[in-house]
Amino acid sequence: METMIRISPEDALKIVLAKARPKELCETVPVAGALGRVCAERISAPIDNPPFDRSPFDGYAVRSADVAGATEASPVRLRLAGSIYAGDAYTGELEKGTALRIMTGAMFPHGSDSMVMQENVKTGDGGAEIFVSSPVGAYENYVRAGEDIRKGQLLIEKDETLGFAHLAVLAAMGFESITVKSLPVIGLFCTGDELVSAGSPLPAGKIYNSNEILIGSRLRELGFAPEILPVGGDDAGATAAKIDTVIEKFDAFITTGAVSVGEKDIFHEVFNILGVEKLFWRLNSKPGGAILCGIYRGKPLLCLSGNPFAALTGFELLVKPVLGKIASRSGLTVTRRRVRLSEGLNAKPMRRFMRARVEDGEAHFPAEHLSGQIFSVIGCNALLDIPADTAFEAGGEVYALPF
Amino acid sequence: METMIRISPEDALKIVLAKARPKELCETVPVAGALGRVCAERISAPIDNPPFDRSPFDGYAVRSADVAGATEASPVRLRLAGSIYAGDAYTGELEKGTALRIMTGAMFPHGSDSMVMQENVKTGDGGAEIFVSSPVGAYENYVRAGEDIRKGQLLIEKDETLGFAHLAVLAAMGFESITVKSLPVIGLFCTGDELVSAGSPLPAGKIYNSNEILIGSRLRELGFAPEILPVGGDDAGATAAKIDTVIEKFDAFITTGAVSVGEKDIFHEVFNILGVEKLFWRLNSKPGGAILCGIYRGKPLLCLSGNPFAALTGFELLVKPVLGKIASRSGLTVTRRRVRLSEGLNAKPMRRFMRARVEDGEAHFPAEHLSGQIFSVIGCNALLDIPADTAFEAGGEVYALPF
Repeated sequence: METMIRISPEDALKIVLAKARPKELCETVPVAGALGRVCAERISAPIDNPPFDRSPFDGYAVRSADVAGATEASPVRLRLAGSIYAGDAYTGELEKGTALRIMTGAMFPHGSDSMVMQENVKTGDGGAEIFVSSPVGAYENYVRAGEDIRKGQLLIEKDETLGFAHLAVLAAMGFESITVKSLPVIGLFCTGDELVSAGSPLPAGKIYNSNEILIGSRLRELGFAPEILPVGGDDAGATAAKIDTVIEKFDAFITTGAVSVGEKDIFHEVFNILGVEKLFWRLNSKPGGAILCGIYRGKPLLCLSGNPFAALTGFELLVKPVLGKIASRSGLTVTRRRVRLSEGLNAKPMRRFMRARVEDGEAHFPAEHLSGQIFSVIGCNALLDIPADTAFEAGGEVYALPF
Repeated sequence: METMIRISPEDALKIVLAKARPKELCETVPVAGALGRVCAERISAPIDNPPFDRSPFDGYAVRSADVAGATEASPVRLRLAGSIYAGDAYTGELEKGTALRIMTGAMFPHGSDSMVMQENVKTGDGGAEIFVSSPVGAYENYVRAGEDIRKGQLLIEKDETLGFAHLAVLAAMGFESITVKSLPVIGLFCTGDELVSAGSPLPAGKIYNSNEILIGSRLRELGFAPEILPVGGDDAGATAAKIDTVIEKFDAFITTGAVSVGEKDIFHEVFNILGVEKLFWRLNSKPGGAILCGIYRGKPLLCLSGNPFAALTGFELLVKPVLGKIASRSGLTVTRRRVRLSEGLNAKPMRRFMRARVEDGEAHFPAEHLSGQIFSVIGCNALLDIPADTAFEAGGEVYALPF
């Protein structure tokens, strides 16, 4: 295998990001099914919201001039000319000296420029008239058409990730469907002669394949729908042939296993067989010794360690942001937040990424966190980035990368 | 309608939570499909992980006693007796004076108590022997069976919400499927004569139904799969009959609209017709004037405002934690975090919940945030809890409730 210099995760990411291309394919989906998807168009408001001047409360639509002199001692009497309910198309005019019963959300009649809340009104003449005992300003208690959204206003930019509020706005505008970026098609291919699938007995020397579920679940959590390939063995030729057969359909291809320095670390040979454009092998961090990335037929080929914690670290540092670029998901980057260590750390010669639980800005390590341990990742919510050759006391500050 | 005293969101929540019952129904799902689900059983480890003593690196399995005296000047020569690859079931014994090539993840042979990394070894005699130039301690570079997980150890408690790490652990233990709590069946029923469904033209006085998408999307974001009923009109009898017909299948039933003080605020009458056990009506906060909750045939009937922002606030304050209890999702509670205001606020006589974007502990209000506005919720990630009768200067602290 070719010797390559270990590089920093940051440099590695720059190199892959420069090669990854956003997927441009789009599809139209119902608004109700667009949560978390990436908007593929610039969307402007086709109508005002609210679409008409409407009442914010239950009460009486009036002409403010009619009640300008109203007092407790000398209330203004108005003839009640009818009712407007939410949903009514009221076409009449509010005559001087009259009022209309109006409900929350109902449209104001022409001629009316405000409403009196029903708590401030007494009725008389068997409900045919009302007495208003205090004035109300013009356009007080009055929601104008377009107060929320004006027709023509920009609502959503291209490439915005759609949250519940975006979708509610689209619904309020009457959109039934929306054009979004198609989800990247992501392949996940775990390799290793030692791997046995769940549900089968476990022969001596074998282990159950946990990387498929680990990386697959993390992908699902981030909104992707990975396609899982059957587990592969430690045969470079067969592995290369398999990848060559399927790569066309994928936007990115993730593997686990066989990327270290052992005889059966076949991915170096797989890269040679396929003529993959190798981008880097190995990071100058721990974990990081087993990660290999290349571009094959334009697609990122992201080969993670077979060690689950190392695979997870490689996923967070490199795969997640690469998929973020392919999916145009601006939120899927490596984010870093300053946190305090709850306990001290000795200096080590290599930069480390350690699992931790961050709460209220303080990072706590689980009791056990050896590289081969995956159980203690339960309850953790971040990787801590511990610089090389640096000791820390409790309270010292490092960066955390939240999962 | 019956007059009820406005109560605090906290008291209201206590009242509903006391009546809501966790759903006990369970189902068995594949581990790969269990992300975010609630574990319905206490799970202990059926096997050790790793299942056997294994090598953490590529190199040579040795007896540490054999190489105790190794130095650069006088390396120890060992005869190479074969190779063990990951996945091999090696049954032989490592003889004194010999070594075995061993790969990362391969099982240690009987007799060997450590390994020498291949970087520290020279081969000789055409690969038939190796020279070790430094000693290695017993059980150095040696991963013992059960180092990660010991057979019998508690892995997952009943009612833990399953994240990617839980699922990876289950996979490593060979579980193919797992018993989880069945998802609550949640009904969402938007009512109002003014509502028009997306895709149809908008007659005068009508608005598009955005609450269905707003509340429906928020439910989906939280991992629920709401069942949406066709929009209902402002007819109390028909609404009561509809609810009566469908309630049996639901664990919780959410409505929007018709819960204020107007003539067409029919839910007061719906409650009377059905004989719903009314729990409270109206909170002493803004929004909060339009929310009505009861228990009907054992099911929470959670009636939110027709005003989208008020509906969202009621959802966050009450519906989300109630569904959290029904679903046994301990993470679905009302969480509160202290944040700084980026601008001052005048005192108002009523407690308010205001939309905001919280970043690095600082809360920013959107330019517009009237109750009837939904567009400005885009980009916000929290509700701020602003106490009554209290003015704030910029930098003042309040609680934020993250979405």
